[in-house]
Amino acid sequence: MLLQPIIDLAEICHKHGVEKAVLSPGSRVAPLTLAFTRHPKINCQTLSDERSAAFVGMGMALNDDKPVVLACTSGSAAYNYAPAVSEAFYQQIPLIILTADRPSEWLDQMDGQTIKQKDIYGKHVKNSYELPIDYDNENTQWHINRIMNEAILEAQRFPKGPVHINIPLREPFYPEENETFQPSENIRIIKELEGSRLLSDEEIEELAKKIRSKKTIIIAGQRKKDIEFSNVINRFIETHNIPVFGDILSNIHDSEEVIKLQDSFLLNDKIRNEESLKPELIITFGKSVISKQLKLYLRSVKNLKHWHIQTDGYCPDTFQCLTKIIRTDAFTFFNQMLQISDNLGNEELQNNWKSIDLQCKMTQNEFFASQKNANEWGEFSSLQSIIQSLPDTALLHLSNSMSIRYANYIGLEPDAPELFCNRGTSGIDGSNSTAVGISLATPERMNIIITGDMAFFYDRNAFWHNYSMANLRVIVMNNHAGGIFRLIKGPSQQEELEEYFETRQNLNAQNTAMDFSMDYSYAYDENSLNKALIDFFKPSENCKLLEVNSDSSINAKIFDLFKGCIKNSDFKLTSEKK
Amino acid sequence: MLLQPIIDLAEICHKHGVEKAVLSPGSRVAPLTLAFTRHPKINCQTLSDERSAAFVGMGMALNDDKPVVLACTSGSAAYNYAPAVSEAFYQQIPLIILTADRPSEWLDQMDGQTIKQKDIYGKHVKNSYELPIDYDNENTQWHINRIMNEAILEAQRFPKGPVHINIPLREPFYPEENETFQPSENIRIIKELEGSRLLSDEEIEELAKKIRSKKTIIIAGQRKKDIEFSNVINRFIETHNIPVFGDILSNIHDSEEVIKLQDSFLLNDKIRNEESLKPELIITFGKSVISKQLKLYLRSVKNLKHWHIQTDGYCPDTFQCLTKIIRTDAFTFFNQMLQISDNLGNEELQNNWKSIDLQCKMTQNEFFASQKNANEWGEFSSLQSIIQSLPDTALLHLSNSMSIRYANYIGLEPDAPELFCNRGTSGIDGSNSTAVGISLATPERMNIIITGDMAFFYDRNAFWHNYSMANLRVIVMNNHAGGIFRLIKGPSQQEELEEYFETRQNLNAQNTAMDFSMDYSYAYDENSLNKALIDFFKPSENCKLLEVNSDSSINAKIFDLFKGCIKNSDFKLTSEKK
Repeated sequence: MLLQPIIDLAEICHKHGVEKAVLSPGSRVAPLTLAFTRHPKINCQTLSDERSAAFVGMGMALNDDKPVVLACTSGSAAYNYAPAVSEAFYQQIPLIILTADRPSEWLDQMDGQTIKQKDIYGKHVKNSYELPIDYDNENTQWHINRIMNEAILEAQRFPKGPVHINIPLREPFYPEENETFQPSENIRIIKELEGSRLLSDEEIEELAKKIRSKKTIIIAGQRKKDIEFSNVINRFIETHNIPVFGDILSNIHDSEEVIKLQDSFLLNDKIRNEESLKPELIITFGKSVISKQLKLYLRSVKNLKHWHIQTDGYCPDTFQCLTKIIRTDAFTFFNQMLQISDNLGNEELQNNWKSIDLQCKMTQNEFFASQKNANEWGEFSSLQSIIQSLPDTALLHLSNSMSIRYANYIGLEPDAPELFCNRGTSGIDGSNSTAVGISLATPERMNIIITGDMAFFYDRNAFWHNYSMANLRVIVMNNHAGGIFRLIKGPSQQEELEEYFETRQNLNAQNTAMDFSMDYSYAYDENSLNKALIDFFKPSENCKLLEVNSDSSINAKIFDLFKGCIKNSDFKLTSEKK
Repeated sequence: MLLQPIIDLAEICHKHGVEKAVLSPGSRVAPLTLAFTRHPKINCQTLSDERSAAFVGMGMALNDDKPVVLACTSGSAAYNYAPAVSEAFYQQIPLIILTADRPSEWLDQMDGQTIKQKDIYGKHVKNSYELPIDYDNENTQWHINRIMNEAILEAQRFPKGPVHINIPLREPFYPEENETFQPSENIRIIKELEGSRLLSDEEIEELAKKIRSKKTIIIAGQRKKDIEFSNVINRFIETHNIPVFGDILSNIHDSEEVIKLQDSFLLNDKIRNEESLKPELIITFGKSVISKQLKLYLRSVKNLKHWHIQTDGYCPDTFQCLTKIIRTDAFTFFNQMLQISDNLGNEELQNNWKSIDLQCKMTQNEFFASQKNANEWGEFSSLQSIIQSLPDTALLHLSNSMSIRYANYIGLEPDAPELFCNRGTSGIDGSNSTAVGISLATPERMNIIITGDMAFFYDRNAFWHNYSMANLRVIVMNNHAGGIFRLIKGPSQQEELEEYFETRQNLNAQNTAMDFSMDYSYAYDENSLNKALIDFFKPSENCKLLEVNSDSSINAKIFDLFKGCIKNSDFKLTSEKK
């Protein structure tokens, strides 16, 4: 007997626009495996480690901005999805998680691969559902259809996120030879027409008036790259002279006008303490902001007001001064603000912040040049060289924790690639896999992941599958430790530093490269790095891996030197220059 | 300012007998790291992949039969523990899980490494707690002490299991130079005196009467090896002539009298259908039973009664006929039954089952001999050769899914090592790590893990640490796939078999062996296997890895042949022999 309602799930997903499913092997999941692999319009891929599989699926959904189906077998498989589920929840990425389950009567009977799967992801899914197991009653079939429609809609409502459907299944799982395996006809699909949120002219006027009356800055959080949006931001800055601070995660580095080096120049006491620079109002949009200096700075500014632009859902109070939530999207908001003809900003404020950003850039360039002249070799300046050499058509993936932090100090040039980073939970557990997922979803683009050794080895199973990774480039910044702990004052002063904080580790990436047929190269100084980079981004049949070796304590010294250099810089205000 | 109550946690654990902690690196977890690493009586080890770390800790707790502390940083780290937490819950292994957390006010503010950690393991922990974050109030300090005492006691109450304590922490995490880092004096410890459950003479008589009136068999589920207990079982069988079916998980293979090959001989129609063999009463003890044939057989026997011996807690109804729960432990129960002088059993029933077991053993031996004579090479017979060669003082670890299943068909000889296998959830996700945990806890013993390629590569990070694995031997049965799916009728008939069920994979273990400085050898036929085994179990400075290569479709043919051989055997009842 066919499990017809299970075959129909794939068709419902397809009719809602789902194009991809990431499966993991198992016995109980077989009916789902067959339903999705036999659906002609759904592209299926399989990965055996469910932890990686879930991050791969999440990467695809992030790239496509469409829900991706995950399906795994019963038992602890579902728990291996959990790290990615929490990342998807906080990064607001739509996932349809289907966990096959044994019939509920076998729970707690000491039978294999049976755990309490219902609601297993707690509050890290937008909603969780369970399908009925017996299909004889007509209402049951309606119920399954209703749940699937609702779950797929819910995953896509703003803020998007993962939904979980637990699916207990009875044998037999496989069709008999004489059975035709295809979806039912006329499956009911529930569509949702979203509408869009527009502020009224009066509301816009009211906001404009308040903006004009305060020293205002705008802060962009994590977003996907969107050239049209960057153009709007550019025009907004030019029109209104309001400074926009673009965190590296915000992907508006393609705008020349955006201020980018706040994580650096806010290390400087003079800048932080300068009253004339302190904003009275900040307007934010997007998801998380990585710049720790910016967070600390804004949390310390007195009487600061904070408006956050977000269409729907819960809003974070990142700077501890949220006073207004503006229910529209950022693109619409800035477009509406462009219709205000009078200048909203404060030209001096804008010029000052922009000038500080430029001065900081020059200081940093001098720092990196002097490092190279002195033949100092460390991960920070080698990362700077690498970032400068990236092909602009690529997609760039940075892992937690130091790769993304260093890069935010360095800043991206306008022609740098779009950036991805798992800043939902900021874990190291799925950086490789997320990059692999996006690279599988974009075979025509080059995907480059820059990662530390801890994140790289943690998630090696990202590469354990049979699909082409020719368009993937992996750069492992190997300092044989969680080097971040040497960069923080607390742990670096403890005798337990090496064993329990850095957790020094001996692996090189060469054997892993061999395992996965990656072309391997190795850099240990500026020359070998430059040599390796010559061919690294050229097309090839295989994935390429470049290992960049450095010493954790030298890295710490160099980063200290860098911070000292910024702290001691005498940044000039425009008034001082005159 | 010192986080004194956090320092005291380690002391409370110590005073409750905790001897080991497995840590994973992180920033927020620093106060816990310092508290445990600086405690002179707690042995700490650190692993960077929390999924492996948790299984390693679980292995240690299983070996020591004492709670082990796990401690990780905030964010998705806690979710990487989850697969091991569910295994520990169902395998009833005590764990004290400490998850560092950010202060609750930072939840959902788009700050890094902050997820909803409270109650994150759902129903897969015996209880979950959260410590208060500010310590100024006296009642707060009492509260923390109370929670820690209670949690450690709860983890050890039967059935044992994991408990979770979420620990939000405020900076600073590190002591100032002038601060003395040591536990408070006179920390309050709450002890629990357990008592033991004894049945009254009248109850024993009553049970004996019922046993005597029925055809009774005894079935042992998963247990640790216990020579004294095996002696009692032996005496019980000799005294009362009641057949005892010892699943491979039950670790009573050291008893010659125990019946072991039920997974094989119950494939035979004649045996299954023979009315005179069918039990009327089964008495069980221990945890799960792996033999699928035994489960199917007993679930099909009409009017069967089932008594389960278990001191406390929820009892599974594995055979769907549970009618009585006997609240004592198996050792006490069988000892009390030995005081009954009259024979309780049915000699003919006992002789028949024992004889079938012996006939089955002979048939199997002939099968393996004929395989070797014909130079047939496959994983099943090579596993049989390996099992025969194991040093009896070793500890043996078998992974899910086929390693343990094959071994249960083959059966262990009385001198075979003690066996471990993760049959709580029956996942492949932590087999290596559990074995590594037990090997770290038993440096004086040899630990041997026999695993398939899927389980081996899934959990490679088990070996990613800096501790000696000289006493570990890894045997990877590599058929380049999840070979089990070719052994099952359903998936093996689908066109999706290779990509989506077996998920064929290309890795060999040699590069992994190089990564972790393991001595590598390779077997591809009987000769190379025998040659490799000569030195494999000899002491060495490094871990050794033996890769046994086989072909998944040949393996399937051989296993079919084996099953056919048992199905077609003409097992004789004792009455037929006369």
